Amino acid sequence: MKDNKIQIAILGLGTVGTGVYKVLKKQQPEMLPKLGVEVEVSRVLVRNLERAASRVDDPSILTNKWEDIISDDTIDIIVEVMGGMEPARTYILDALHAGKNVVTANKDLIAADGHALMDAAKDANKDFLFEAAVAGGIPIIQPLKQALQGNYIEEIVGIVNGTTNFILTKMTEEGMEFKEALQLATDLGYAEADPTSDVEGLDAGRKMAILASIGFHSRVTFKDVYTEGITKITARDIRYAKEVGCRIKLLGRARNTEEGIEVGVYPMLIDSRHPLASVNDSFNAVFVKGDAVGDTMFYGRGAGELPTASAVVGDIFDVIKNMHFGCTGRIGCTCYKQIPMKNRENIVSKYFMRIKVEDRPGVLAAVTSVFGNNGVSIEQFIQKRKNDDLAEIVVITEEVKEKNFDDSVKILKTMSMIKQISAIIRVY
Amino acid sequence: MKDNKIQIAILGLGTVGTGVYKVLKKQQPEMLPKLGVEVEVSRVLVRNLERAASRVDDPSILTNKWEDIISDDTIDIIVEVMGGMEPARTYILDALHAGKNVVTANKDLIAADGHALMDAAKDANKDFLFEAAVAGGIPIIQPLKQALQGNYIEEIVGIVNGTTNFILTKMTEEGMEFKEALQLATDLGYAEADPTSDVEGLDAGRKMAILASIGFHSRVTFKDVYTEGITKITARDIRYAKEVGCRIKLLGRARNTEEGIEVGVYPMLIDSRHPLASVNDSFNAVFVKGDAVGDTMFYGRGAGELPTASAVVGDIFDVIKNMHFGCTGRIGCTCYKQIPMKNRENIVSKYFMRIKVEDRPGVLAAVTSVFGNNGVSIEQFIQKRKNDDLAEIVVITEEVKEKNFDDSVKILKTMSMIKQISAIIRVY
Repeated sequence: MKDNKIQIAILGLGTVGTGVYKVLKKQQPEMLPKLGVEVEVSRVLVRNLERAASRVDDPSILTNKWEDIISDDTIDIIVEVMGGMEPARTYILDALHAGKNVVTANKDLIAADGHALMDAAKDANKDFLFEAAVAGGIPIIQPLKQALQGNYIEEIVGIVNGTTNFILTKMTEEGMEFKEALQLATDLGYAEADPTSDVEGLDAGRKMAILASIGFHSRVTFKDVYTEGITKITARDIRYAKEVGCRIKLLGRARNTEEGIEVGVYPMLIDSRHPLASVNDSFNAVFVKGDAVGDTMFYGRGAGELPTASAVVGDIFDVIKNMHFGCTGRIGCTCYKQIPMKNRENIVSKYFMRIKVEDRPGVLAAVTSVFGNNGVSIEQFIQKRKNDDLAEIVVITEEVKEKNFDDSVKILKTMSMIKQISAIIRVY
Repeated sequence: MKDNKIQIAILGLGTVGTGVYKVLKKQQPEMLPKLGVEVEVSRVLVRNLERAASRVDDPSILTNKWEDIISDDTIDIIVEVMGGMEPARTYILDALHAGKNVVTANKDLIAADGHALMDAAKDANKDFLFEAAVAGGIPIIQPLKQALQGNYIEEIVGIVNGTTNFILTKMTEEGMEFKEALQLATDLGYAEADPTSDVEGLDAGRKMAILASIGFHSRVTFKDVYTEGITKITARDIRYAKEVGCRIKLLGRARNTEEGIEVGVYPMLIDSRHPLASVNDSFNAVFVKGDAVGDTMFYGRGAGELPTASAVVGDIFDVIKNMHFGCTGRIGCTCYKQIPMKNRENIVSKYFMRIKVEDRPGVLAAVTSVFGNNGVSIEQFIQKRKNDDLAEIVVITEEVKEKNFDDSVKILKTMSMIKQISAIIRVY
């Protein structure tokens, strides 16, 4: 700090970095009364100095050398918004070792390696905050670590990927097929050129790993998370879901059960009266169930320049308050337990299944007996009108062990009367 | 503190106090790893020692003498959950002056006199936290003060009274009239014997005063809040609302406009696709609009033993962390501005109005010209089928100055062709 100013450096001037720069500028008149100090962006690390020049008032703050920042003792807070694993990881560790506080939005890094970073922050007694890493602007990490800390969190269910939620909303409201909705998302800038990480549930999986770690006080990394994407969902599935009073959403689901922690990302049917069911377009929401608080939900923009910057700047201001009170490191790692991950064979789900079968006597009995023999109870059974010589059957199971369901499917696949297994989707 | 234990005292062992006692007991095994210390409820202030005896494990912690608590230097945190103005106010001030931290759920007190209490906390460098005072278990005060602090908050709209939301939900879903739904709420324990504070919007008004103060950084007290209740809402109004794609909710609305702050509680029609419209039963939700974050919403249980205790215990644990890091008083009063309240004459609203008129030529022209002459633009005009010799007209206005609308109504009331003004409800 110098002259009542806190000097910060921003690493990266992409969407989020630019947003942080803008929000800090807008907040300038508020800083003295709000924080007792002003915040000055004294350095911004960029790859291309020329291209970045137009995005800041004073291009002399730009640098492409990390050394300019790490060796500058007047800089107290590093805001890492480059994303990706390296060099972000090295920079953050260097910064913490050098006694700087760090604010980041880097979910990939935290979901894979958060513990090492939090350990470094603890050793240095510095803040390492990452509210923006999950669900963009929605306050969720801080509420889990603070306001809800008197709860045993039983379950966290989230719509934590805006791109897929936009796609599913278009499929639901306008009857589009996946490819068409993806194209629209790409055209509108919601989906990246390579949409794999979004549509296969990887991005959501990383966020769920972070949420589960915080909620259950036990480290969950991305490799512990089962992920399934939405590429196979069809407009027909969505119509059937509506018929049974449901919507299809890509849900991240983390449960702390007696047999361990389970975290997965799957497209799921969810009752249309559930608060998550009406979270549409690119909005995100995280539903948290605690033993004391009951059901809560946190809703908002999960991405975008300014919403993400809102979370980053909230963290920066928190660090500044902690610096003022001499209590940086106040909210550190909260994983003080070591709960095993639940064996996937013991995971229990409800399923929606759509199959095409020969339209002749005995078929239904055969199908239901396969389920029965494998311990799969059926909650709903709908036979739809014929199409060619085939009948379409929709089966919704009770909660069953996934293994038992998979075993049933394996057998069904071998049966000549079953012509097609058109869809298998979990039910929340 | 003694023996690695933080001693706390609970004032009041009603619904919330009992909940806090229960939640702390459940959290006992978590405390050492979570906080580094254990929390011991060493004193509980009650009026009737005998009646309270069955609610605690060790009745010797009960006392009916405030002196036993205020003079006990081993007690670091006072949890005030008695409610009401006095003696709560005196006890809290005494506690802060004596160097104790205070956690409270007392919305009445904070909405009327929060500033004096926060000043006392500041002078003592102690924590004065009150997450439970608004929307029970829903984290909202902390997110506004921390995660969203990088925003200019433009608007806060809340369903912050569970009793009225339950009543309106029953009226909407089951076609009940107000009295019948109120009776059901009373029978189920959602409404108090004297429901005035709930159904007239006073309880919601207090919460909105607190939220507006925090969101806009400028003190708003309950007397600044305009309140209107739901007693005049009929099942018929709700049916009409449905026809135009809306629901009726009791909304607290706080806006920070260029002409000052406005805070009001009114029943309002709200588009059924708005996230607040599907907040049903006794659930609460607070919708916050910030310049960076955009639209966010916080949803959950706004009252009840354990949800409210969740918020209180979250605060207690936060105080303990602050004590450990020597930074109590870290989050104090955030009202560093003095924004005037907006003159009610300048407040702008949309209105839904239902009137019965004589069914003869010229009536519609007369009604619309009254609005036109008073600068009230009409967005929708629905004439319903006759009933006796009367026609029913539903008018939905554009956003208009309330004064202009009120002037129109005054004139309509004098016109012989207008037989009844059945309903006037604002539209969100």
